[in-house]
Amino acid sequence: MSLAEAVLAGSRLALARLLTHIESDTTEGRAALVELFAHTGRAHLVGVTGAPGTGKSSLVNHLALHFRTQSTAGVPRRVGIIAVDPSSPFTGGAILGDRVRMRDLSGDSGVFIRSMASRGSLGGLANATSGMVQAMDAAGFELILIETVGAGQAEVDIARLAHTTLVVEAPGLGDEIQAIKAGILEIADILVVNKADRPGVENTERALRSMLQLAHPSQRRVWHPGQAHPLLDEAAVTVEGEIWLTPILRSVATEGTGITELGMEIDRHRNHLLASGEWQLRERLRLEAELDALLQTTLVSRWRQTISPNEYRQVLNNLVERRISPWKAVEYLLNGGQT
Amino acid sequence: MSLAEAVLAGSRLALARLLTHIESDTTEGRAALVELFAHTGRAHLVGVTGAPGTGKSSLVNHLALHFRTQSTAGVPRRVGIIAVDPSSPFTGGAILGDRVRMRDLSGDSGVFIRSMASRGSLGGLANATSGMVQAMDAAGFELILIETVGAGQAEVDIARLAHTTLVVEAPGLGDEIQAIKAGILEIADILVVNKADRPGVENTERALRSMLQLAHPSQRRVWHPGQAHPLLDEAAVTVEGEIWLTPILRSVATEGTGITELGMEIDRHRNHLLASGEWQLRERLRLEAELDALLQTTLVSRWRQTISPNEYRQVLNNLVERRISPWKAVEYLLNGGQT
Repeated sequence: MSLAEAVLAGSRLALARLLTHIESDTTEGRAALVELFAHTGRAHLVGVTGAPGTGKSSLVNHLALHFRTQSTAGVPRRVGIIAVDPSSPFTGGAILGDRVRMRDLSGDSGVFIRSMASRGSLGGLANATSGMVQAMDAAGFELILIETVGAGQAEVDIARLAHTTLVVEAPGLGDEIQAIKAGILEIADILVVNKADRPGVENTERALRSMLQLAHPSQRRVWHPGQAHPLLDEAAVTVEGEIWLTPILRSVATEGTGITELGMEIDRHRNHLLASGEWQLRERLRLEAELDALLQTTLVSRWRQTISPNEYRQVLNNLVERRISPWKAVEYLLNGGQT
Repeated sequence: MSLAEAVLAGSRLALARLLTHIESDTTEGRAALVELFAHTGRAHLVGVTGAPGTGKSSLVNHLALHFRTQSTAGVPRRVGIIAVDPSSPFTGGAILGDRVRMRDLSGDSGVFIRSMASRGSLGGLANATSGMVQAMDAAGFELILIETVGAGQAEVDIARLAHTTLVVEAPGLGDEIQAIKAGILEIADILVVNKADRPGVENTERALRSMLQLAHPSQRRVWHPGQAHPLLDEAAVTVEGEIWLTPILRSVATEGTGITELGMEIDRHRNHLLASGEWQLRERLRLEAELDALLQTTLVSRWRQTISPNEYRQVLNNLVERRISPWKAVEYLLNGGQT
């Protein structure tokens, strides 16, 4: 039985092995993903992003418990968690209270938790994340929570590729944090004010509300179902659907407060995406971004094989000594040593 | 007179124009950089990174004032500032007190401030930053402060390319913030505990000190001058130099406290780099990273010109419908339509 077949048959051990292969970008990992790809596309991908200190990890934890025990459909869903966040307790942070609860999760065969400890290149991180999402999707996890720390562009980019993006805020993180939000707000499908038992929760909510009104809607938000979308091939999307207005919800994740409402809102967004045809659009954007990232990686590694290390080093020496500029160096290298 | 010549002649207007060209990655901008490159390599590049809320921008502001008015050599240095940080007051944050002081800076012809408002692709951001650094360097700015928000990998990568990297912390930002530091600590040449008049400053310092002891020194830190370095060509580096021990300094930037000491430490690090031969090593690593980023961008855009949009779209359609996996799609596209 191949690794991919074992994953499809439901082996947790095989899935764990495959995720390790994906993280290290091995030939075996790639081959398994090729085999598994036809079985993907069913999972609901939910990105959870926010600055450090907002309590994202507790929220992810409790959302997983929610979808295991309650569900709109009455049937518990299998939940995958991918934590791409050096401050997450999944990857080695230190929130003792939550670690204890996490043990409940890890005893549950309907939950699979994987963290990305790697601090490798950005492209590598994004490639590995989408590979891991595919593996969990093919393994039958119906809801995949992707946790990223939202202060950096890279992490935002990873979260953006989800079907549903939650942006988590918390009261009292200081004025400077407010300023960073404008960019992040644009990618939010659902805003969560966590730690809502803290003073200042009304101020945070008010600030978010006025920023939501000010923020230019992102491109994907101004597209109206029923219109032809330039990215969706020639065929016009004719499905009707209401416009999604980003809701603001309160929660106290450590106490489990507000989690049921948040879970319901996530399901409501999923239904909205499916009814409006936007699910298909986001799938396409996600796969296109993934394709472009792989193309880039492959183009670079193929080119590397064509150049001799000595020649590359010689060009670098000339660059360091300012005999040639970076743009000239690139021209020289890509034209096979001809200027 | 070409744009590059005007920049070399000291025109602020020409420099401002050039920076705009670089940010938009125009042909004119590239041509000017090719012309200017031979005039670069003199500036001391100082990266300043840290989480939102640590007061990085005030610190950058006061450091600029410091280097304008005081200097180890007695001669004021010309200071360039590049802010790659959506929460920075340079790029549109809202710290009123500091905005006022900034006006003093902007009336000074020995200071040039440029912000990166763009939230474009990561590669684009890094390319634009290094282009801007080159332009300011060629224009005669002797010290260039590069401010980035340090919670994301991309921003850390940008700061890492400086000669000297300051990592800014502040007391009382919460336990989760502590957890993120391990990775960032590795790139710090100087640690600054800003807002040191706040309660908890001793705890923050103690935590940083023990993390410094735990942290594996980064590769560049374990290299000992006098040994041959694998990256420095065949020639062994024979210059002797003491080992740099990352100092921890306190400051209250808004009041100007601790800035003189910090400025002196930045100069001391510069002297250390020059004496140990590590300046040359970092130059080389920086230029190599820049070359690789440009190679990647150029390879992708050249390849794009060889493929028909229709063919690309057809492959994407097959991908969306799960008839072909991402890896197979890449193979197909890069082998010119042959599977």
